[in-house]
Formats: sequence, C-alpha cells, structure tokens
Amino acid sequence: MNIAAVILAAGLGTRMRSRLPKALHPIAARPMLQHILSAATEVFDRAVVVIGPEMPELQRAADPHPVVVQAERLGTGHAALQAASLLEDFAGDVAVLYADNPLITPDTLRRLAAARGSAGLALVAMRPAEPGRYGRVLTNAAGEVERVVEWADATAEERAVGLCNAGVICAPAADLFGWLRAIRNENAKGEYYLTDIVALARQAGQRVVAIEAPEAELRGINSRVELAAAEAAVQARLRLAAMEAGATLIQPESVTFAFDTRLGQDVTIGPNVVFGPDVLLEDGVEIRAFSHLEGCVVRSGAVIGPFARLRPGTRVERHAHVGNFVELKAAVLGEGAKANHLSYLGDAEIGAGANIGAGTITCNYDGVNKHRTQIGAGAFIGSDTALVAPVRVGARALVAAGSVITEDVPDDAMAIARGRQANKAGRGFRGKGVKA
Amino acid sequence: MNIAAVILAAGLGTRMRSRLPKALHPIAARPMLQHILSAATEVFDRAVVVIGPEMPELQRAADPHPVVVQAERLGTGHAALQAASLLEDFAGDVAVLYADNPLITPDTLRRLAAARGSAGLALVAMRPAEPGRYGRVLTNAAGEVERVVEWADATAEERAVGLCNAGVICAPAADLFGWLRAIRNENAKGEYYLTDIVALARQAGQRVVAIEAPEAELRGINSRVELAAAEAAVQARLRLAAMEAGATLIQPESVTFAFDTRLGQDVTIGPNVVFGPDVLLEDGVEIRAFSHLEGCVVRSGAVIGPFARLRPGTRVERHAHVGNFVELKAAVLGEGAKANHLSYLGDAEIGAGANIGAGTITCNYDGVNKHRTQIGAGAFIGSDTALVAPVRVGARALVAAGSVITEDVPDDAMAIARGRQANKAGRGFRGKGVKA
Amino acid sequence: MNIAAVILAAGLGTRMRSRLPKALHPIAARPMLQHILSAATEVFDRAVVVIGPEMPELQRAADPHPVVVQAERLGTGHAALQAASLLEDFAGDVAVLYADNPLITPDTLRRLAAARGSAGLALVAMRPAEPGRYGRVLTNAAGEVERVVEWADATAEERAVGLCNAGVICAPAADLFGWLRAIRNENAKGEYYLTDIVALARQAGQRVVAIEAPEAELRGINSRVELAAAEAAVQARLRLAAMEAGATLIQPESVTFAFDTRLGQDVTIGPNVVFGPDVLLEDGVEIRAFSHLEGCVVRSGAVIGPFARLRPGTRVERHAHVGNFVELKAAVLGEGAKANHLSYLGDAEIGAGANIGAGTITCNYDGVNKHRTQIGAGAFIGSDTALVAPVRVGARALVAAGSVITEDVPDDAMAIARGRQANKAGRGFRGKGVKA
Repeated sequence: MNIAAVILAAGLGTRMRSRLPKALHPIAARPMLQHILSAATEVFDRAVVVIGPEMPELQRAADPHPVVVQAERLGTGHAALQAASLLEDFAGDVAVLYADNPLITPDTLRRLAAARGSAGLALVAMRPAEPGRYGRVLTNAAGEVERVVEWADATAEERAVGLCNAGVICAPAADLFGWLRAIRNENAKGEYYLTDIVALARQAGQRVVAIEAPEAELRGINSRVELAAAEAAVQARLRLAAMEAGATLIQPESVTFAFDTRLGQDVTIGPNVVFGPDVLLEDGVEIRAFSHLEGCVVRSGAVIGPFARLRPGTRVERHAHVGNFVELKAAVLGEGAKANHLSYLGDAEIGAGANIGAGTITCNYDGVNKHRTQIGAGAFIGSDTALVAPVRVGARALVAAGSVITEDVPDDAMAIARGRQANKAGRGFRGKGVKA
Repeated sequence: MNIAAVILAAGLGTRMRSRLPKALHPIAARPMLQHILSAATEVFDRAVVVIGPEMPELQRAADPHPVVVQAERLGTGHAALQAASLLEDFAGDVAVLYADNPLITPDTLRRLAAARGSAGLALVAMRPAEPGRYGRVLTNAAGEVERVVEWADATAEERAVGLCNAGVICAPAADLFGWLRAIRNENAKGEYYLTDIVALARQAGQRVVAIEAPEAELRGINSRVELAAAEAAVQARLRLAAMEAGATLIQPESVTFAFDTRLGQDVTIGPNVVFGPDVLLEDGVEIRAFSHLEGCVVRSGAVIGPFARLRPGTRVERHAHVGNFVELKAAVLGEGAKANHLSYLGDAEIGAGANIGAGTITCNYDGVNKHRTQIGAGAFIGSDTALVAPVRVGARALVAAGSVITEDVPDDAMAIARGRQANKAGRGFRGKGVKA
Repeated sequence: MNIAAVILAAGLGTRMRSRLPKALHPIAARPMLQHILSAATEVFDRAVVVIGPEMPELQRAADPHPVVVQAERLGTGHAALQAASLLEDFAGDVAVLYADNPLITPDTLRRLAAARGSAGLALVAMRPAEPGRYGRVLTNAAGEVERVVEWADATAEERAVGLCNAGVICAPAADLFGWLRAIRNENAKGEYYLTDIVALARQAGQRVVAIEAPEAELRGINSRVELAAAEAAVQARLRLAAMEAGATLIQPESVTFAFDTRLGQDVTIGPNVVFGPDVLLEDGVEIRAFSHLEGCVVRSGAVIGPFARLRPGTRVERHAHVGNFVELKAAVLGEGAKANHLSYLGDAEIGAGANIGAGTITCNYDGVNKHRTQIGAGAFIGSDTALVAPVRVGARALVAAGSVITEDVPDDAMAIARGRQANKAGRGFRGKGVKA
C-alpha cells in the first residue's frame, strides 16, 4: 500500500504563549514534529508537512521532508488541501496527521491504513474519559460511521455518545482532494473543517469506518500545561519500558529519559538522572544520582556519578568510573580508567587503567580552536593538574600533583611543573587581611 | 474602609516538634507569618501580630508590624483580645487571621471585607472534602448565619451540614473587643474560643454572614506533614502560573519555586531546579537541570546549568553562559561571556565576551575581608587559573592556563604565572608509592 | 517461645530480567533478603535461608545465617522442606517467610507467633484491593480457617471471598516437616505447594487460624516495576516517619532515604537529597538541595550543600559548613570549619574553625596507597591549593592561594608555593590560537 502522510503543523499555538512554533516544542528531548514524522515514516511511504508563513525553523526541522505553506489559516480542511500541490497526482492514499498530536503510535497508524483498505475513508476515534466538546462519531448498526457531528450541533442524545472524533483520517488522494475542495466555510468561525469530508464521502456512497485508539495518543497539545502532561505521559511510557526490559529505576518518576535512550540489561539508574538525546548504556552500567548524560556511550560495567556530566562525543569504556563533579566532553575514558573527582576532560583520549586525579583540567580551548589531550594507558595524573592541549602524556607516565603540563611527557617518564614551597615562620593566619 | 488585621501567631506548634515557633516555618522559602502578612497588608490597612512569650525571633519577623504578647495561652478568643491594647479605640474593623492558615488569598480577604460591609459580623467558611470535626456553620433560609456549632455539641443532623467554620472573622473593632470580653471558658479545655462571638453577635441582634472560600486556602498547618502538604499546594499553584504565563517546565513537579520567582516568556526550566527567594529570569532564559538559584537576575537569552549555582548578588547578562559545577556569588557575568566548567566566581565583574576557563577560582577572601576581581571585556582566562583578589585583568588580556595571578594584568597583555615543567625519564608510574 | 524463620530465597526472579538473584535486589539501599532477615531476627530466634544452586552471592548475603540449597525448584512446599536438614529436631516452631515479600513488619510476625500459640497452624492473610487470582482463605462461623482454596479451583462464591492467602505460615517444626513430606504435586504445574499443609493440618484435627495484615506488607516483588513500587512504599513510610519525628522535608517525595537514615529534631532536608546507608544527622542540621550522603555523621547545627557529597567515614562537626561541589571522604571537618566551594577533602582531618578555600584538593592517593592530610585548628587554606599528602598544615597556619603544598607547614607559619607572575605587554587575546 502506498500512503503519504500530510502533517498539519501550521498552528501558531497562541495558547503556548511562545515565539517558537508550536510544532517545535519538545517532548522527551525531541520536537513534536519529529515525533509525528517518526511515527508517520515508520508506517507510511512519504510525508509532507504543512507549515505557516514565516516559519523557517519549522521548514528546517521538517527536512528532508517537503513542506507546503498555508498562507492563510482557514481551517484544517484548507490546511490539508495545501498538500495537493505536491500530492495531487499521487496514486495512493493520504493520511492527515497533526503535529500537535505527536503521541499517536505507529500501531494506530497501521490499523488506520488497514481500515482504509476496507472502506473509502477511515478515521481514528477515541473514547475520552471526559468527552466534553469533541465532535461525536455516530455509527450505524453495522458499526460503520454514518456521521461526525460537531458538539455545538449535536442533540442531547448524540452528545451522550462516547465515541469522539480525533481528526485523523485516511483516504485515496484523488478522493480526498476532491472532497477538500468541496467543503464550505459556512460556520461560526468561517473555517474549512477537515471533518466535513465524512459527510462528502457518505454522499459519494463511500463506506466510512473508524478505528479506536487510546485517548492518551490523541490528546492535543495547545498549552504549556498540556505539553507538560504529554511529557509526563511519554516519560511514564519510557520508564515502564526501561523497567520491563530489565533496568532498575530506584525512583522512576525522578528519571527523565530522552525519546531514544537505550539501556542494556541490569542497568541501574539512581534518583534524579537526566538523559539528553543519543545515549547508549550497555549491560550492567550503573548511573548514580544527579547525573546528566547526552550523546554518549557507556560500556558494560562502568559506573557514572553521582553528579557526573557526560556530554556529546563521550565514550566510557568497560568498568571505567566517572565520579562526582566530573564533566566529559568528546572524551574517551579507557577501560578501567578512573576520573572520580572535580575534573573537566574535554577533547581527550585516556588510556586503559589510567588514573585521573581530583581537580584535573584539560585546557582544551585557546579561544579559537579546541586541542586534544592524550593520556596513555596506565598513566597516573596527580591531583590538581592542568593539561594544556595539545599535549600527550605517555603510557605509564606520572604527573606530579599540582603541575601545569605544557609539553609532552614520554612513556614511563615523570613530569613535574610547579612552584617551590617556602615556609615563613610566624606569618600565619591571625585573622587580619593578608593576600592569601 | 479601614480595617486592621490581627494575626494570631502565638501557637507553639507542639505537633511540629520544633524549637522554631510554628509561624516561622517556611513555605516556598518564606515564613508562614510573612505569607499571611503579605496577604493581609495587600488588602487591609494595618496589621498587629499576637505572639507568645519568649519569641524574639517571631517579634523580629513581624517587624515593622507591632506585636502584642499573649502571656498565657487561653484560647483563640483570648489571643485576639490581646490586640485590644493596640486597637481598642480603632475606628474601623478588625479581621482575625491565623499565621498557621497562611494560604488564604487576598481575594478571599477582599470578599470578607465586602461581606462585613453588609452585616455586623462576617466569617469565612469552607466545604472540606472531609468535614470531620470542624465546627459547622448553620444558616437560615435567608442564607445568613444562625449559629456555629462545635462538632462535639452538634446533632447528627447538624453534623451532616457540609459548611464548616474556618475561624477567620471580621467585625467592627468596638463590637469585637466587647464580644471577646464577654465570652466564657466553660468548656472541656477551659479555653476562650473566638467562635463564641457568633452567638454574642446574634444575641446583640447583628446580622452574621459567611463567605465561602476553597478548603485549600484554609487548611491549618499543625505538623510537618501538613507543612509539606501546604508546600506542595503552593508549588502546584506557582508551577501552573509559570506555565500559563509562557514558561516550559519539562517536569513541573521537580521544580521548586520561591514565593516570588519571576519568569519571562519562553523561559525553559529543566528537571530538578530549585529557586530561593528573589530571582528574576528574563525572556528566553534557559535553566538546565540541577540548577540552584537565589537572589539573582538572569537576562534574556542566557543559559544556566546544568549543575549551576547562582547566589545572591549575581547578574548574568544577555546571552551569557554559566555551565556545570560553576558557582557565582555577588558577580556580574557580562553579555555573551562564558563560564562553563568547574569555577568559583565570587565578588567579581566579568566583562562582555570574556571567556572563563575551566577550573577558574577567584580567591576573594583573605580570612577577614572579601575583595573584588575585575576581568575586562574580551579577556581570556586560561583554565585552572587562580585570581587572587583584589586584582584586575584588563580588556582583551590573556592569562595562561594554570596561572596564579596576584598582580593586575594590563589591557591587551598576556600574563603567565606557573612553574616550569621538568620531565624525568624512567620515573613514571609503576604502581608503587610516589609523592605525586 | 522458640521460633525459627525459614526464608525462601531460591527464586530466580525470571521476570526481573536480571543476573542478580531476586533476593539481592535492593530496597532503600538494602537487599530484600536483609529486609526480611532484619524483620525475622527482630522477632524470631534464628533464621535459615533457602537458596538455589549456584548463588554464591546470596549465600554470602545470608551470612551469618545458615543456608540450605534447594537443588531443584519444585515449589514452595519443597523449598520449605529443605530446611528440615537443619531444623528437623528443632524443639520449637517454624515460620516460613519469603525474600520477595520483604516488607512484612515485625509487628505482623509477632501477631503471627501469638496466633500460633492458640492453634496448631497460623497463617497470614490479607484483603487486597484487587484480590485477583490469590488463593482464598475460607473461615467457619468461629472465625477459624477451614480451607485455603486456589483461585483456579474456587467456585464463584468462594472467589467472592475477600480474604486472601499471603503464604506466610507458622507451625511446630515437627508437624510442619511431617506435613511438608505428605503434600503431593498432582497439579497443573507439578509443584509442591506449601499451602497444602492447611488441609493436612485440618485432617490432623488441628485448629488453623489466620491473622490479617495490610496488603502493603505482603505484596510480592516479581518484576522491576513491582520493585519500584515497593521502593516507593518504603520511601513513603520513611518520609512520614521523618516528618513525624520533627524533620522538615521541603519536597518529601524528592528525598530518597536509606533504610537506616537517622535524623535529629529540627533537621531540614531540601529538595532532591539522596541518602545511602549509615547516615546520622543530629539536631538542627540543614541538608540543602542536591546533596548525597552516605556513611557519615553530621553534628548539630552543621549546614551541608547544596551540591555536597559526603562519603563514608566523614564526620562534620558542630556548625561546620560544607558547600557546593565539595566532596568529603574519610574526613573530619572540625567544629565551625568551612569548606564551601569546589573541593575534594579525602583522608583528612581539619581542625576547628579552619577555612578551606575554593578549589582545595587533598592529593591523597599516589596510585597505591592513601595518605592523610592534617590541617590544624584555625588554619586558612587559600583557594586553589593542592595539599600533597601525607602532609600537615599547622594550627593557625596560612597557605597562600594557588599553592602546591608538599612539605609540612609549622603552626603559625605561612606557606607559599607557586610560580612568579610575568606580564607581557601586547600579547593579549586577539582571537587567534595561543597556548593559554
């Protein structure tokens, strides 16, 4: 089956009170638009995004999917019709989705596509706990959709129906664009409503069917409060999946995952841990409390935190340790190596078994360029050491505590670079001002 | 209308199990007493605080409002009567409030005052989800209060009434003090109950009216568990207000606000962020996870955290960055300047565009006085540098990594202050004890 | 009364998806097995642990209690019978407990023991909110247990009974082992069920009685999701107990206790604090947000955090302060001493009133051994100082900021150990690459 998704993303999201287009607000560290694109392209063959005028960020976010611009915001039917310029001759189906409905699952989209196969128009319905002012989906004895009635137009009896319209539909492209051109805007808001194609399809003698999906997938996001609720729903999903796959989350509700966090078996995640995108934790990894990880790989048996920060480009090898107040950026910490206290390791390669003392700083930036620090296997970097990159400390080399290392240290050598101590009797601390 | 608030704050709070007077326990980083004083003085003209004997901290906290001391704790009626010494001749109304009921809103107080205008005595009532042993407010057909009956004295029918007495009242000063002197303590506890003035007002032929307010405003705080519940209620209020005003809270329930946190539009607050008092975040500020802010201003577009600490007197200018394990205290970080890693910047002024390397420490304290560090615009402070204040680094100056700077560095100069490196072949790390 | 506990801990916990035996998964920083052993040994006289084959870690965890190995997993009755090898001739009672039911309280065990005193067999029952497929406990008019019926075998009427079997029993050792040998495995799974002894006891003419206990104590832990739920239940218990004893938890649900955290009165714990085992906080201690404590004592009036880490062997004396990004390990911080910023103090003794500047690092490790740092009372350690242990800084000594101290500093002396500063005009930062 050949299906194109049309994703409506032109909404300004006035209730968000934001300068950022609504579709770019993130959930689980990914913009809403990417969520819906990800679900859509997992199931469908191509995607077109309908954006509003002057939304260059949104256009970039849609890339490589083509966008069409809805110059005036005249309703969902009008928005969907804009895709005709790209899909008019498309010899397949079109599914209309919404960027502010980003939690719809591939499974639901697959069921929608399957339902379309047996009818001229398929739509997604739901049974919300509080149906409120949703349009109601009215079915006949055969279970087919007769009508979708807006809440404002519904009788008391119709309002008592629990099946509500979620707005997501699928139909052959040719039919769809025909119907979209036929809908009218003779209503209170003067808008063209996508929903009106149901009546047109019925008039054309088509069968219309509805699949049901959980409300949680279909709740729209129109405010920051709803955004937070969606975030909470996605986090609950991710936490449950992590635990079911064999990770221990000591306080699950205090862990913030990204949409793509990957966890091995017997991973333990302590309280208050935050994941940015693109993190892979292998089997048996322990992430202790108050850690913040993004763009990194942590290999089996490594221990991270508490209070550790792993930034993009970091790889922590097997059984290595990263301790408190330690930041790694574009750094490899070798197998069994340790960096346990108050260190910044940026643009660095640290060999297996090396020991990085407390307060070690790689001076990787000269104000213009970043330079690399290389530390050999088995090296011992004494505490409170500055490594001025580019610099190489050899294997099994020893750097004396408190040194500022500006030149390479050969393998097996010892380097020392610090001032000589002088003690001055009787000049100790007496609580008066001294330049100490 | 001229109204004085009398705030009863003499309670020991035995169930708090604390040496601190109950009224000084904080909610959202402000003592309960300040919460109620803030609400009261927003609506009323003056306030008097009734404290117990030997509560000097409470007296200080009440300042500049006068206090009267209730020498013996003989009940709420007796407590309110102590204010007579200051308000006996007050030609207006008196409203009696409670320091352990600190969440009552100005709106409720305004409605109380308005209700008093139409009756001889006005009181605040509520309809708690679990009315339990609250006194019940009995009204007549006209909706006026006939009686307040204590739970112990109530019939089954009266106990079935959902309207409960919250204890907050408003009446003309002269009437109130007259009634307070007339109440008796012939009851199980031998106390003088403020509530008894309702009967006295009715005997005097006065109309008594009740306004209703949400239970959430009126729940008393008598234990640490109730204190935590009140904190949670206030935090929920503050989080909702922040989101509705256009801030994104990624995990709202993990953000702890102070009562006075001010947020611009399109502020993003990551998981696990704590605000102390007096923080202002301008538009577009991003506060990343695990940050702790108090007494600071963060200007538009600045990025803070993760793991950042901003202490009182800090100002982060537009588009500046404060990164992980960085503390600022009484410091200005100039526009576009960066302090991204493991630094302490205290009593410092840092110019626009300056770059503060990892591990930079301002040595601002000599054991007696604090001294200032000034860093010019466009300066580059190499990593792992100590700046021994008072000291000035000029504009566009460069400090070599690992330096200890004790003397001023002129504009455009380079400063270096570190030991010379020596490499000693064959003396590397062999796993034996060395003084490294 | 002489009672031995037999703790069934042989379960593989397949649904945990873990290589770790189920009984070793921790709750509140203590393995489940230790929880149940702690409750059992508080009430009973001895304990025997039934483990599976090839579970050496579990055997170690049971120490000093003896273990017996259930070579084949043939059901709970078979598991309990394995204890006969140690308890066959035990002249007392045997209570059968479960490692994956670790939240049962000593109080419930005492009631079980008391109930056994009046009957030939006592068992623990519960009334779960959702009885589901639990076996039902059927009682007669006298309230005695007639039968326990498995859900699969129960009639609709029997399934309507709310009283469910929790599996925990107590009976005389001789009777119990006799019954255990008599039970059959003629059932769907071919297992020997402990529950079948109820019928055998009745056949033997014994009275059987049930005590009721809260479901929360008896819920089994078979998956990581259930483990997290148990953790949450234990944390809720610990938080409530802390607040009732006089501690303020600003956001209780963000505090993670260990099973044995001890708190004095008027302790305040900020948001996002994590306790490992063996922490004692004395009266009036304040633990600020984002702190992580384990194995330490904090004396009265001390202030810790935010962002502080106290590791095992740490003692913070009265009114001392530990500030942000500071780690203490096996260190004593003397009365009124301060270590407020970005420091690592390991294997150190710091005298009363000493001031530890920002960025102080004790260089305690030479790659093989740990060495101690001693700092005298009233000493002043300038910021950004490395103390290369073993080293002693005398009382009232002053260390100049930025020093690397390798030799002892006498009392009242001043020590300085840093490079000399050179300023080079016109070589400032111009945005080109310099080795800074």
